[in-house]
Order: sequence, then structure tokens, then C-alpha cells
Amino acid sequence: MPREYELIARLARIIPAHTGLAPRARVPAGIGDDAAVLRPRAGYDWVVSTDALVEGAHFLSALHPADAVGFKALARASSDLAAMGAAPLYFLLTLSLPAAKTGAWLNKFAYGMARAARRFGMRLVGGDLSRHDAVCAAVTVIGEARRGLTLLRSGAGPGDVLFVSGRLGAAQAGLEWLKREGPRAAARRPLPLALRSHLYPEPRLALGRWLAQMKLATAAIDLSDGLSIDLPRFCSASGIGAVLHADAIPLGGRLPTRNNRERALGRALHGGEDYELLFSVPRRFASRIPPRFRGVPLTRIGEITPRRSEVLLEASGQTTTLRPLGWDHFRKDA
Amino acid sequence: MPREYELIARLARIIPAHTGLAPRARVPAGIGDDAAVLRPRAGYDWVVSTDALVEGAHFLSALHPADAVGFKALARASSDLAAMGAAPLYFLLTLSLPAAKTGAWLNKFAYGMARAARRFGMRLVGGDLSRHDAVCAAVTVIGEARRGLTLLRSGAGPGDVLFVSGRLGAAQAGLEWLKREGPRAAARRPLPLALRSHLYPEPRLALGRWLAQMKLATAAIDLSDGLSIDLPRFCSASGIGAVLHADAIPLGGRLPTRNNRERALGRALHGGEDYELLFSVPRRFASRIPPRFRGVPLTRIGEITPRRSEVLLEASGQTTTLRPLGWDHFRKDA
Repeated sequence: MPREYELIARLARIIPAHTGLAPRARVPAGIGDDAAVLRPRAGYDWVVSTDALVEGAHFLSALHPADAVGFKALARASSDLAAMGAAPLYFLLTLSLPAAKTGAWLNKFAYGMARAARRFGMRLVGGDLSRHDAVCAAVTVIGEARRGLTLLRSGAGPGDVLFVSGRLGAAQAGLEWLKREGPRAAARRPLPLALRSHLYPEPRLALGRWLAQMKLATAAIDLSDGLSIDLPRFCSASGIGAVLHADAIPLGGRLPTRNNRERALGRALHGGEDYELLFSVPRRFASRIPPRFRGVPLTRIGEITPRRSEVLLEASGQTTTLRPLGWDHFRKDA
Repeated sequence: MPREYELIARLARIIPAHTGLAPRARVPAGIGDDAAVLRPRAGYDWVVSTDALVEGAHFLSALHPADAVGFKALARASSDLAAMGAAPLYFLLTLSLPAAKTGAWLNKFAYGMARAARRFGMRLVGGDLSRHDAVCAAVTVIGEARRGLTLLRSGAGPGDVLFVSGRLGAAQAGLEWLKREGPRAAARRPLPLALRSHLYPEPRLALGRWLAQMKLATAAIDLSDGLSIDLPRFCSASGIGAVLHADAIPLGGRLPTRNNRERALGRALHGGEDYELLFSVPRRFASRIPPRFRGVPLTRIGEITPRRSEVLLEASGQTTTLRPLGWDHFRKDA
């Protein structure tokens, strides 16, 4: 069995990383010392967030390929940077895993994480490895944004228009597909969209930065636990309410089997892990939001109302309160 | 059972935290948004590190009180800031835990972490909670240091003198004590030094900053895995060797039973988790290192030699190669 330092060295070889010393660079000290030294740029704030991907809670070793676990661990955390309009820079990884997974599994995990790091433009600057019965991967991401140009959850005002990126429910459809078909579904090539959304989610980093820099959005949140959980969070932070138009919600994840619209809407409202951005735009700027941003559809799905924390769903002329049935780790039936 | 957001709110109430918005402050956005926004100070670098505390690997629920787990999770990670001479500022926590531990256990964990945060002067700026069979706590710490004034592992030169803070082996003695006596040992008041060292370690933050600011140390490392593992790391980073004087090593952890010196030396060399600082000082500055710094003994225990990565132990006139028997999670017998 390899030793701890060999595993760390292997990870830092596979994953784009800052290693060693570079006193004049933006990372004066990378991996290899007790801590990394990072040099902030003048006029920029730093944006930091942390997220864990845990075996049993977020993935199953029997179903999820190791490279998807590595990819998703970084993608999940980076989605929070997208929601803040920050440019991703660095990340740190604490990984606990069983000894039996320190060989091929760890390599595949690292290749998946490396692919995500290259895709998002991020480099590893620190980590910690330990042994555990199950895989527990915690990722801390660090990004930067010009002072005063971060997107918050709390800026939405009455009359603003609600937009969402991409199509919702695809990740949930992918998870259901994987559970039904088993791990061979993940090996399909080309990988169907729903499975790709679930296994290799794409945080909307470029969109978040564009919205922040153009000052088009008043507030934003990334959809990690499902629209029906995340929209109330968004409303609560902004002190407003919202009305969603069910018919306008872009549905994702076409399944190979015949699928009715109601189930797809349920996934779009309550399915987690879409990692799309939900954002509000002042009505007078709404026409400046293009139908697509770099190939990703942007869809108007509702409006902000002044009724604090009241979240309504309007479907076929009927308006009801939106029930929060999205993902909560500690809910009784979770 | 409480919901996820209630747990997060509870943690942020108990642990000193930056919450909400304060646009002009050093933390423009704290807990409550997708990510925290931090404002770096001009002329300062940031120092970041991450460490996990995992049930089964680092602690046992049957032996270790929850508040010690919380305290130690933050202390472990902060010790890396001490070794770099950085001032601690913020931390992020990802915590996975069983539903059965979301009540009293989590409260005690939070109180322990809160005590550490107050003691070290740190505030929580982000976190993530999920459910898991075992407790997995990953902490990322962020500190700052004036540009060019961080302590690295890599600056030691031949002829430098090696110092260590505190007394070594105490934490290992405390662990043995706890294993022998069971959890009631952790309830003793006053808590004996060895148990305190093991359960509530004290990172040498003030000492690290002083050494860095006074430019007295050429290199430093914190002793987390044992002198016999960490000294070779230090030597390898600096491209030098070292000779340790066994008789000079300050031994810690007096046990209630009669204890021979050889076992205490074994613990000092190979026992992990002392979180003391090992640092090198140019010979001409050695007299400027006081015998105590804020009550913590500083002891000269060896010298740096030019023989790359050769680490020798001199005891009773005999010189032998120091065998690395300290802690490695993935070593066969670990």
C-alpha cells in the first residue's frame, strides 16, 4: 500500500496544482509546505466556499464512477463561486478514503477532478489525506471578484424578473436513470444529457461573472437542492416573495422511455443538483438578457413580488403555494 | 430531527461567525449567502490550509468528548498557520455526521470549536453539513502575513540551530492514558497536562508570528505526525540534514504511574499531535531565543548539517540514523 506522501504527490501530479515556491508569483508558496501562501490582487475581494461529497449521502461507490466523484466534488463547490459572480482560482481538498481505494479508484478520482480543474481554470493549493471506511471529499474553493461586484442572494426587489439558466430536472432524471440501469448507464458513450448533468455538472461560472460584471442581475443563487428549496432561500435573503410560472420552466433530461410532463416538472421543481443559476433582473433590463449565453438557454420563469417569503406557483391558471420538497440531508425521509 | 438549515443556524449561533452583510468591513458577506466575501488587506499575503478530523482515524466517539473533537478540528488546522507565522482570521467547516449526533453531540462539538475559535481569534465564514455514518470534520483555515514574512519549511541552512517549543510526547502519553482508563479520564478536573495536550492541543500561533516578524527563524514546521516524520520533511524541504541530541529533547506528559525515560523519549520522537513548532535559527541569533516565550519553553535540541536528508540521533555518545516511526495513515500497521 502506498504511503501518505506518495498519495499526495500522485494527486498533485495528476491534478493541476501550484507546488513549490515562486516568491514573485500570485502563489508564493504552493503545495509542499504547512500551508499555501496566496497573494491577493489589489482592488479585488476574495470569495470562498466549502462543500463535501460524501459516500452514501451524495454518491454510491457501486453506481458512481470514481472520475465523476472527483469531477463533481469540485463542480459542486465551484457552483457557489458562479452564483457570486466570482472568477475561480484555487481549491483545497481533504479526502478520507479506504485503503482499498488508494489505487485505481484514487487515480480515476484525480483524473476527474483534474478535468474539472482545467475546465474551470482552477489549481489545487492544499490538501489532507486520511483513511476512513467511506469516501469523504471536502473541497474549499477560492475565487476573486472586483470589489463591490459580487452577486448576492439579497438584492432582489419587487417587480424584478426571475430567470434561470439551462434546463431543470436533468440531474434528477440522470440519477433515476442510473439507479434503474445500474453502473453500465454511466459507461454509455455518448453520455446522454441527463446522465451528464448528474455525473459531470457544469457550474455556470462564465454566466455568473458576466451577470456580475454587467450589473444586470440584482441577486443570484445556484440551484443545488432544488428550485422549491433554493427559491425560498433566495426570497428570504432578499426579503421578497416570488411567483413562478410552471409552464415557462425549461424542463431537462429527456429520458429514453416515454415520460410525462408532470413528472418532469416535479423533477424541475424538487430535484437537486442542477447547479443552474437562478437570478433576478430589473424589469427594464430584462430585454438585455439574451435567449442564450454561450449556448446555455436563459429563460424567464417568474417575477419577484413584495410579499415577503411567499413563493407561489402558477400553473394552468391556478396559483398555489410552492411546497419545499427539494433536498435536505436531515429531513426525516431523506 | 432538526432540518439542515436549523443545524447551520445553530452552529453559527454557538461558534463565533461572520454572518450577513457588512459592505465596508473586512468580511463584506459572511455566512448566509452561497459563499463568503473576504477583503484582503493591502501588503498582506493570505495563508490557507486544510485538515480533516475523521472518526475512527483521528478519534473514537466512545473515548473522545464531542467538545474535544470540535476544539481539535480547528486547532489541528490552525497549527499550520502557526508554522507559517501567519495571523489566523477565518475558517470554514464541512461536517458530515450521523443523525443521532445532531442533538447534544453537535452542541458540544460546537462549544468546543467555539472555545478554540475565541482562543485563536478566528471566525467561521462558511460551512456545509451532510449526513454520514461517521463524523468527518474538514476545516479550512485562512490567515494573513505581511508580504515576504511567512515562515517556510525550506529556509534552513547548515550551521543553523534547531529549536522546539513546549515538551514532546505529551499528546501521545495522553492518548495512551485515555485508551487505558477510558472516557472517564477525559472528565478529570483539573485535566492532567498529557490529556489536555491530546484533547485540547494549543497551536503555537503567537510564537510563530513572533519568529516570522522578528526574522529570527530561517524555517519552521509544526509537529503533527511526530518528530521522526516531521524533521525529515523539514530537512528534505530545506535540502539539508540534521543531528538531534536525544538528551536535550524536552519530554512531556508525566503519567500518574512510574514511567521510564526511554518510553518517554520514544513518544517524543515518534508520537504525533504535539503541535509544537520545530524551527531553525542562525547560530549568531541563537542567543536571542529566550528560554520561554509566553510561558512556553523553547529548547535547543540539535543542529542543521549540510548532509542532505540525513537525520541523525545522538544519544549517550552514540550516533544513529533516526528511523521515521511517526504517524502515517496509510502505513501498513497504522
